[in-house]
Amino acid sequence: MTRPSSVPPPVTAVLDASSRWLPARLGEVEELLREAISGHGDTLGEDAAATLQAGGKRLRPMLVLLCAGPEGGAEVVRAAAAIELVHMATLVHDDVLDDAPLRRGLPTVAATSGRERAVATGDLLFSRAFDLLADAGDARSVALLADASVALARGELAQRRDAFDPGVSAERYFERCRLKTARLFECACLLGRDQAGLREFGAGIGLAFQLLDDVLDVSGPPERTGKARGTDLLDGTITLPMIEAAGSDPSIREVDLHALDSSSAEALCDRIEATGALERVRAQALLLVGEAKQALERASFGSEQRQLLSLVADGVVQRYS
Amino acid sequence: MTRPSSVPPPVTAVLDASSRWLPARLGEVEELLREAISGHGDTLGEDAAATLQAGGKRLRPMLVLLCAGPEGGAEVVRAAAAIELVHMATLVHDDVLDDAPLRRGLPTVAATSGRERAVATGDLLFSRAFDLLADAGDARSVALLADASVALARGELAQRRDAFDPGVSAERYFERCRLKTARLFECACLLGRDQAGLREFGAGIGLAFQLLDDVLDVSGPPERTGKARGTDLLDGTITLPMIEAAGSDPSIREVDLHALDSSSAEALCDRIEATGALERVRAQALLLVGEAKQALERASFGSEQRQLLSLVADGVVQRYS
Repeated sequence: MTRPSSVPPPVTAVLDASSRWLPARLGEVEELLREAISGHGDTLGEDAAATLQAGGKRLRPMLVLLCAGPEGGAEVVRAAAAIELVHMATLVHDDVLDDAPLRRGLPTVAATSGRERAVATGDLLFSRAFDLLADAGDARSVALLADASVALARGELAQRRDAFDPGVSAERYFERCRLKTARLFECACLLGRDQAGLREFGAGIGLAFQLLDDVLDVSGPPERTGKARGTDLLDGTITLPMIEAAGSDPSIREVDLHALDSSSAEALCDRIEATGALERVRAQALLLVGEAKQALERASFGSEQRQLLSLVADGVVQRYS
Repeated sequence: MTRPSSVPPPVTAVLDASSRWLPARLGEVEELLREAISGHGDTLGEDAAATLQAGGKRLRPMLVLLCAGPEGGAEVVRAAAAIELVHMATLVHDDVLDDAPLRRGLPTVAATSGRERAVATGDLLFSRAFDLLADAGDARSVALLADASVALARGELAQRRDAFDPGVSAERYFERCRLKTARLFECACLLGRDQAGLREFGAGIGLAFQLLDDVLDVSGPPERTGKARGTDLLDGTITLPMIEAAGSDPSIREVDLHALDSSSAEALCDRIEATGALERVRAQALLLVGEAKQALERASFGSEQRQLLSLVADGVVQRYS
């Protein structure tokens, strides 16, 4: 397998530690993704292909493969590709929703081809995911992925509904993150293997992933995140760093998010950071990752597999340290 | 079952002719649709519920039920609800794409709740469709519906790609309609029963349905269609009436669709109508319906079922006569 040049260090660590079987399996996933996206006879899939080429960490496919272990067969590779297709679909739709110009430092489908094509491209990626699993008659995986997809859409709707509401509670925020992010990580683990502890492991690192993503939106720097600081705030999305910060400095809650521009959004990021909220949210994320790794102990599989999954969990944190 | 007040006459004809079993079965479909859309604990599904309440002809569920026949069980009712959920998802997303203010004479989700929520609402409806089938372990239906969904998204992308291109051929138009509309009608029939002739029947009436829909966009009247004349033209969508009209009056091809406003769009509709193109497209649709009914003869089921399906085929035409 040619390793994508954009692979971040923690993922590389997992690949190096598992050179016996994981890289080849990930290569098969990439192959399936390419087939699922092209093969439409003409250039219909060009927006989808751009999304594929933009890369990404392939964290969810890696979780599927690692949970399944070295004995996982073709059905595991298919499930890994399918979950990444759903993830890509949500990214493309999110960019329509957020009107985002950049994703991973590259122009979004919505920005280059218009919202119209981006909605349809997301639908295509989504349909392809189910097509891939259904053609292989993999009913269990279809059920898991459909369930997670419902959660994703509900999470997205909840986020829209909460937008610009300064009264959003931490509890509500966590519920949203569970739906929007954690459920798909959980699904990835269960697609790999139905085993005690894996649900908690996936949900835990997924939640941590979202918390740290929300920290990054405030902390930047843009050179590393590929997007401007305070993008969520400009979009009216109130995340844990802001909720935590308002606990220390209630005047933060009074900022009119509707009136923000990019420079006042940066200033608000500075105010949030000054309360120490980012450290507190990071600490919560680390706690979640620690608990997730403990949940792994309940799963009965080889020490190599447990070690690799721990590396993925660490990778979620390290990416942001 | 309480019959929705908006049920159009041809559908009523089918219901009356099949009072023995069809209305009760359709009632079960409505019940499943309600369950699939609500039951999210809070008002998350309110946009989706509005889409449900806006009604519609439930043509696709009716095809599923009729093809399955009176002996069809719970799995047929589920498949009927699932295909309607996918159809509703595409309507919600289409309205985002088209920026449409009205659908069936009522405000669209995109218009009342914003594009953002409309994209997520469509995703929710879509996920629910697969969730419904997958939970019941109905792998065959999942495969059929996933396949049709891929076609739908490809058709939508093709339409976006062809937008504002005056050189679009009739062949290209038909290919688009097959993907965007006919495949889902075909899928409805196959969800009901895997039998010779049903694929052609579904595809034929689906194609006719789209042709007549495109005639209606030009002919109006808005009081009946619930949207302004020339909505497709304003959106840059070149359909068979315009392609046919340009065959008689090549100057029609030179109209700059980018420069249209609602009154010049109406004037263009008048010019298209004046060429006799609408009659020619209607005649093609009638031919397709006739062929579809012939394909029914190859299916081996009771005369009542064949008669009811013929009524549906006639209904596709009558709605527009």
